Amino acid sequence: MANLSDVAKKAGVSVTTVSRFLNGSLSLPDARAHQIRTAVDELRYVPNPHARRLSRGRSDAIGLVVPDIAGPFFARLVAAVEEEADRLGLGLVLHATLNRPARELRYLDSLRMRHLDGMIFVTNRAADSALLAAVRSCQHLVLLDEDVPGAKVPKVFCDNEAGGRMAGGYLAAMGHRSVLFVGGEADMVSGRRRYRGFEQEMHRVSDGPVRIERVLGRYIPETGRDAARRFLEMAPRPTAIFATSDEMLIGLIEVLRDALVTIPDDVSLLGFDDIGPLHLFAPPITAIRQPVRDLGRRALGVLLETLKTETGEAAPTEELLPVTLIERASVAPPTTRLKATANRKDMT
Amino acid sequence: MANLSDVAKKAGVSVTTVSRFLNGSLSLPDARAHQIRTAVDELRYVPNPHARRLSRGRSDAIGLVVPDIAGPFFARLVAAVEEEADRLGLGLVLHATLNRPARELRYLDSLRMRHLDGMIFVTNRAADSALLAAVRSCQHLVLLDEDVPGAKVPKVFCDNEAGGRMAGGYLAAMGHRSVLFVGGEADMVSGRRRYRGFEQEMHRVSDGPVRIERVLGRYIPETGRDAARRFLEMAPRPTAIFATSDEMLIGLIEVLRDALVTIPDDVSLLGFDDIGPLHLFAPPITAIRQPVRDLGRRALGVLLETLKTETGEAAPTEELLPVTLIERASVAPPTTRLKATANRKDMT
Repeated sequence: MANLSDVAKKAGVSVTTVSRFLNGSLSLPDARAHQIRTAVDELRYVPNPHARRLSRGRSDAIGLVVPDIAGPFFARLVAAVEEEADRLGLGLVLHATLNRPARELRYLDSLRMRHLDGMIFVTNRAADSALLAAVRSCQHLVLLDEDVPGAKVPKVFCDNEAGGRMAGGYLAAMGHRSVLFVGGEADMVSGRRRYRGFEQEMHRVSDGPVRIERVLGRYIPETGRDAARRFLEMAPRPTAIFATSDEMLIGLIEVLRDALVTIPDDVSLLGFDDIGPLHLFAPPITAIRQPVRDLGRRALGVLLETLKTETGEAAPTEELLPVTLIERASVAPPTTRLKATANRKDMT
Repeated sequence: MANLSDVAKKAGVSVTTVSRFLNGSLSLPDARAHQIRTAVDELRYVPNPHARRLSRGRSDAIGLVVPDIAGPFFARLVAAVEEEADRLGLGLVLHATLNRPARELRYLDSLRMRHLDGMIFVTNRAADSALLAAVRSCQHLVLLDEDVPGAKVPKVFCDNEAGGRMAGGYLAAMGHRSVLFVGGEADMVSGRRRYRGFEQEMHRVSDGPVRIERVLGRYIPETGRDAARRFLEMAPRPTAIFATSDEMLIGLIEVLRDALVTIPDDVSLLGFDDIGPLHLFAPPITAIRQPVRDLGRRALGVLLETLKTETGEAAPTEELLPVTLIERASVAPPTTRLKATANRKDMT
């Protein structure tokens, strides 16, 4: 059977070039790449990758683990990391966990078992002890988007608390004093931070009493539908809703629209993420925008820094990237309808 | 250093169980899985995965290669495959190519070099000879969503031609005789089939002459923006537009809205994919819906069938899954405005 040097000779390149090209650690111009592939084909050369890896003890692969990526936010986040990896000439191994604990642990094992050199890990649920233990046992790991409290690894998040403050300040300045907060599960760090900032700023900017109802759950459409159904039963109804994810927002709008509740006349609506085509909704939705591209880029950058340290013992830093308020047409003063005004009178 | 049987003894399970659990080919109840992880941690057991693989000559991994997954269609497609893999207890390795030839070839190499046992491959561009050659040199490969003409491998697509016929028949029955078709690049099989079905049915259902303008490009928002700009310059303007992907549709609507062209009064709009939240757009968009979930499930099913055959020489079948027309509010008869009527007079 043909060996590497046969391929190199036929392709007219060095053995090292063939080797590095075939293991993905070297990019070549199309013409040159084609020569090597042709040689490999004609000689029917098939290396045993595991033998090759054994000799090098590395897998030349970086992993990105995300929850269900059917939602626009995680899809865009993956694309951002992939684009940065492409810019750096790196291949990327993606895994979707569907937010299932067993799947998260399996993929973390693949890092600890050295099938991967490093990993960017994104969970979308409240961390439990098993997940914390698994994360703790890994090296070359970076947490992105959602925290696993207690994990001593580099972390890259958007500034959730600042986003909450922007939302609370904006709604309060518009005159809203009775609002519904639709947030992540109580023990999810992102949800806690968004609420803390929101509540603080609502009180700071408001001159009178403030009423904040809360519906918490996973960042999925069903949580938004549930929140909308609860909203419809509230008396008096809040004059504004802060939905803290695009997915929640979509479920929420579906139910409000079926109930003929118009936005912003009947209720103001403020979103978070701003990844989906909110600018095409009826009406266009005002939202806190996450810096998805920067989050992906920065997470990969931090991971590559930890890979440089032999031990993988990177400083457990936490970077917070800035969010921005995108003003559209879904938030108005609560006075547009008498009902809303009535609500405010009830409060005072 | 501790070995596998040390771990097995400490965890109180068989060596085989530990081995299969650690290489991901066995799922266990959380409690049992936790026992093994604890044993691995306490004994500081780190297998050399490559040595282990060498002994078995397989990687126990299935790959899914998709283009840029920032768009909702591919994100949903990945989620569908991942869910099916999860149901079957399989891990999945995802790769995003950003639709770049070099990246597609690199990931196909990882299949041929046996880093993966099998692969579901999705491209989103017109195949070139290099891609065809690479696909031909692979075993255990299934093409999903877009064809690579000439590749003798199992293929799973939606019924693009039937989707085109549905769209053409629907617009023609509504009275449209002058339409703009926004489609995939001329040499993309999906685009050719959608157009063929669309054109045939337009002519079949129409009683008079038919005018079909075409703007072709990649299935991305910019192609839709370009098409909308060309539409605005047409005189007379077509009375309906068929945008053959959600991404194209989004770009198209952005430009039409900025030009104050209202849907469906000024022009009817029909989409394809129906993955994005088109039901929340203003107005809700009528579209041909792709069976994304079934596409993902079926592709994995077909791949697993090919893995059963020792040679990987699976029959080069082509399965077409049915699409459906989802009626909403973006298509109306062209008579809603005099201009539209005038257009039709121009034709006769």
